[in-house]
Amino acid sequence: MSSSLKTITVRRDVAKQMNASGEALRHQLGEQGTLVVNLVSSPGAGKTSLLEATAKQIAGQANMAVLVGDLETDRDAQRLAPFVPTIQLTTGGACHLDANLVQRGLEALAFDTSAEGPLDFLFIENVGNLVCPASHDLGEHLRVVLVSTTEGDDKPGKYPKMFRSSQVMIVTKTDLLPYVPFSVESVTSDALKIQPDLRVLTVSTLKSEGIDRWCDLLWQQRKERLCIDRRT
Amino acid sequence: MSSSLKTITVRRDVAKQMNASGEALRHQLGEQGTLVVNLVSSPGAGKTSLLEATAKQIAGQANMAVLVGDLETDRDAQRLAPFVPTIQLTTGGACHLDANLVQRGLEALAFDTSAEGPLDFLFIENVGNLVCPASHDLGEHLRVVLVSTTEGDDKPGKYPKMFRSSQVMIVTKTDLLPYVPFSVESVTSDALKIQPDLRVLTVSTLKSEGIDRWCDLLWQQRKERLCIDRRT
Repeated sequence: MSSSLKTITVRRDVAKQMNASGEALRHQLGEQGTLVVNLVSSPGAGKTSLLEATAKQIAGQANMAVLVGDLETDRDAQRLAPFVPTIQLTTGGACHLDANLVQRGLEALAFDTSAEGPLDFLFIENVGNLVCPASHDLGEHLRVVLVSTTEGDDKPGKYPKMFRSSQVMIVTKTDLLPYVPFSVESVTSDALKIQPDLRVLTVSTLKSEGIDRWCDLLWQQRKERLCIDRRT
Repeated sequence: MSSSLKTITVRRDVAKQMNASGEALRHQLGEQGTLVVNLVSSPGAGKTSLLEATAKQIAGQANMAVLVGDLETDRDAQRLAPFVPTIQLTTGGACHLDANLVQRGLEALAFDTSAEGPLDFLFIENVGNLVCPASHDLGEHLRVVLVSTTEGDDKPGKYPKMFRSSQVMIVTKTDLLPYVPFSVESVTSDALKIQPDLRVLTVSTLKSEGIDRWCDLLWQQRKERLCIDRRT
């Protein structure tokens, strides 16, 4: 798949007349073999950097696209567009994406000539916020919460709904571990108390560490959650 | 003022029957010489660490107290209580504090025997969130937005309402500047485009750098905003 330099802004006011549901999106996209991954975190935890590294790693083997949610500006979309077809979803001030905005993003993606055929992966980069996005089903098969080593290992206890509703937790910026008071063991044990089935990974995009394991998990989750083996 | 080990949890459902207004709180507290400071930021940007350092620095010269807002848990309050009278405000899932919760916190503080006489400073540590708290007036005289060097210098453009409604921006965790892609010049220039009157400070609580300037600014703002000179 070639990369796209084009980004399209979908404003919330355009989307609010629609009536998309997360459940319907999940079914529709799953049926065509697209694993939908919703990335959530505090602002600046490294969602865009992780997607950049993911695109570079699997671009040759997979069809992927990204919907990027922000209150304003398209800076994240601009960072990603050289590597992967990217649609900017601007929420116009709201603190989370919703299924209607995702639906509009998918329609915009259909007109993006660089996005070819059914996608293997659709990544949704949610608005940076550990509260509001927890309550909104975007049609994802996998919700992935990122916690950076610099924001403190107390986040699962303080924002339990986000961790309870996620299937994967990624500890990011592990290259900064020598300089910050953060324990991977402690954040993992706290998160597992809240969500015992959580898969935990560690990554440093700056040092390209942990990206292989993350991409392996993506392929494996696609196979398992979409029952790809049973269909082919 | 002696420190308090006691924390009181004020739940949102108790406060919702009240009808406090930010404007009334600001007037009432200003009249008694209390500067109200509302600290806002992403989760983990260093609000609690800054308050800890502030309490240690000015505890001998000033009467101060802290209201700490969290969705759940009282970990931040427990960190602060050894140094300063602290009341925990638990929002029960909401992504911001409101004037009613602050009013309830003030009532709880009145029963805290370690808080003596009228306060010089009331600090409100808001829920870690760069979106929702921007729209809620807590009765503060000063809104202070913290941006840590690890969350990226693109935050003012992405969360403009928070920066537009603040009077002070503090760049935190400057000790990590050698290890992260962050430009103090760039974040400052972006923030000033959004709010030209913003005062900008840099601090490292780990290295105790910038705390003096922050405390000087607090005293100066108290004098100016509450017209202390004109009254005494």
